[in-house]
Amino acid sequence: MIPFTLQATDADSGARAGTFQTDHGAVNTPVFMPVGTYGAVKTVTPEEVETAGGRIILGNTYHLYLRPGLEVIRHAGGLHEFMGWNNALLTDSGGFQVFSLAKLNNITDAGVTFQSHIDGSRHYFDPRQSMQIQRILGSDIMMAFDECPPYPAERAYAEEAMQRTHRWAEQCLEYTAAEGPIYGHTQYLFGIVQGSTFPDLRRMSAAHLTSLGFDGYAIGGVAVGEPKQELRQMTALTASLLPEEQPRYLMGVGKPADIVESIAAGVDMFDCVIPTRNARNGLVYTPDGRLPVRNATSADDHTPIDPDCTCYTCRHFTRAYLRHLLNVNEILGHRLATLHNLQFFLDLAGAARAAILESRFGAWKTEFLRRYRENGE
Amino acid sequence: MIPFTLQATDADSGARAGTFQTDHGAVNTPVFMPVGTYGAVKTVTPEEVETAGGRIILGNTYHLYLRPGLEVIRHAGGLHEFMGWNNALLTDSGGFQVFSLAKLNNITDAGVTFQSHIDGSRHYFDPRQSMQIQRILGSDIMMAFDECPPYPAERAYAEEAMQRTHRWAEQCLEYTAAEGPIYGHTQYLFGIVQGSTFPDLRRMSAAHLTSLGFDGYAIGGVAVGEPKQELRQMTALTASLLPEEQPRYLMGVGKPADIVESIAAGVDMFDCVIPTRNARNGLVYTPDGRLPVRNATSADDHTPIDPDCTCYTCRHFTRAYLRHLLNVNEILGHRLATLHNLQFFLDLAGAARAAILESRFGAWKTEFLRRYRENGE
Repeated sequence: MIPFTLQATDADSGARAGTFQTDHGAVNTPVFMPVGTYGAVKTVTPEEVETAGGRIILGNTYHLYLRPGLEVIRHAGGLHEFMGWNNALLTDSGGFQVFSLAKLNNITDAGVTFQSHIDGSRHYFDPRQSMQIQRILGSDIMMAFDECPPYPAERAYAEEAMQRTHRWAEQCLEYTAAEGPIYGHTQYLFGIVQGSTFPDLRRMSAAHLTSLGFDGYAIGGVAVGEPKQELRQMTALTASLLPEEQPRYLMGVGKPADIVESIAAGVDMFDCVIPTRNARNGLVYTPDGRLPVRNATSADDHTPIDPDCTCYTCRHFTRAYLRHLLNVNEILGHRLATLHNLQFFLDLAGAARAAILESRFGAWKTEFLRRYRENGE
Repeated sequence: MIPFTLQATDADSGARAGTFQTDHGAVNTPVFMPVGTYGAVKTVTPEEVETAGGRIILGNTYHLYLRPGLEVIRHAGGLHEFMGWNNALLTDSGGFQVFSLAKLNNITDAGVTFQSHIDGSRHYFDPRQSMQIQRILGSDIMMAFDECPPYPAERAYAEEAMQRTHRWAEQCLEYTAAEGPIYGHTQYLFGIVQGSTFPDLRRMSAAHLTSLGFDGYAIGGVAVGEPKQELRQMTALTASLLPEEQPRYLMGVGKPADIVESIAAGVDMFDCVIPTRNARNGLVYTPDGRLPVRNATSADDHTPIDPDCTCYTCRHFTRAYLRHLLNVNEILGHRLATLHNLQFFLDLAGAARAAILESRFGAWKTEFLRRYRENGE
């Protein structure tokens, strides 16, 4: 069981502040985990992520398996060594990308045959293979191999995928129990609750997975295109079904308001590509909502994105300079926008944590959501 | 006259070690100046350039005039402020880009009408306009507006362009004498010797320009496609015609071996896009020549680009990681390769300087060129 201590729980919501421990450092929750798909958080160095306050990042099993491949990463001594990141790492199971990105050839109860989206080469993932890859990557937290149905899903398919996910979850536990870690540090294993948008399936899935005994639990199958209300309802329902004393991870979420609402529902961990992806598209985050900094209104604006932000970008550069860099397609513009957006998301989780610890989470949440407007979202 | 002191001159060549002073700091020579076309050295921050040892960078008048435009930069308080660079800045005259990049509409003895390579908009540059733009940019060293003939050039055209360059040089001096700097700090003005590959024109040009009295002198019209021998001969000839007590700047050069040979010819200052451009193409520099780090030979090589290099990249990352990043088109790969190549070029000038100061330049040069092989170049 991953060491996880709760320091405070909000009296009026499910929000909680905790800390889990890995062999690559402690992680305070609620936490936002920047996504480092290919062993790099896009445009920034590990040092910059750490300076912004990042203590855990996510690597993508599917992508890293394809490129650079397992042999290179094993020879490097694992993903931490390969990418120069000495804090915690979480890897996904590869399932989501296999089902959403690759060309699927065959799904059976045993596993999935697929073709790479890069070169069409043929590969096979099953629970054993997903665990084996994640052992070689050497992540501190591994995710059980799962099937994530798209939205909307027929009930029959959602149930079938959930049942498969449950069997695969058991196999992942068996495999990791039999095979120790490669590099000496402990690798924890989280289970993933599925069930699409069907409350009874979500209950069934949470009950089954928690009975198996994972180190933590993820809420999967959300943020796949469903309306915001369904996302929030499924998150709140599932979070309420998970053990109090273990970390809860909402996969692929998300927008600032969704993160805040999900913290209120009792979620501890988040990951999403939107701060980094939107940065490269010139969308930067402020307490008053998103700012399309490439617009002409920023062209002659010699103030920072957010005067209260402590990020490198806001301490050194203006909206006018950032707008110019993005306008002439300078990579430095992508970097500076990324640094700012990462800071915004890391600080958002940090501010929620501080509010929970100081018993003012409800007021903080109200004020944040009042001020933050994202085109009505 | 720009304050310039010579600390040492090589007994067996023209090589010299000096220091010139600007209101944005002292610059030791020989010096390599990274190119920051649009107000950013591509992919890196001003802080990273400084950490690598950069004390002067080059901005492009033509590009910055078009984007973001003069009004924005003037409102920012000049280019130093706009881009957050507190060391010295040199701006070119815009002439080279007007003649090589824009669509030329009309060249007269008064100036040049051209169309932007971005949107086809029509503009007019003359000596007064070039100086006015460079005043607004606020560079510490401005370059006189010149006409750089392509290679090969007919003698008649080379002479005509040279004569025009001479008249324009006088107008640049008159204009800057009449109009002081905008932001308070001193702006020096360098003249540019032209004359293509014709030794007598080079002599005529050097004689005329030095009679006018600039703060320093550039060797223009080289590195425009001529054979290496012509580049080196014109550089050596022109450098020998320039005043001992003032800085000599070889524009747009160049390859490491050309830099070393030009230092031996008495050149003090260099700029070139090749370290940054080649970095983005996956070509990194080592004392043993260029390494195409994207090649498969680097895929499983867990050593730095150069174990003796002090750059951020070599201290933290391996060839295998850099190759992977470039292979999956991660911007971080472009950054890390750029940081390394900048360090290589800055260190190259620094090593030459140290050798001159320690009276061992000849031996250093021989050893550098023996070890460094660039596909036979």
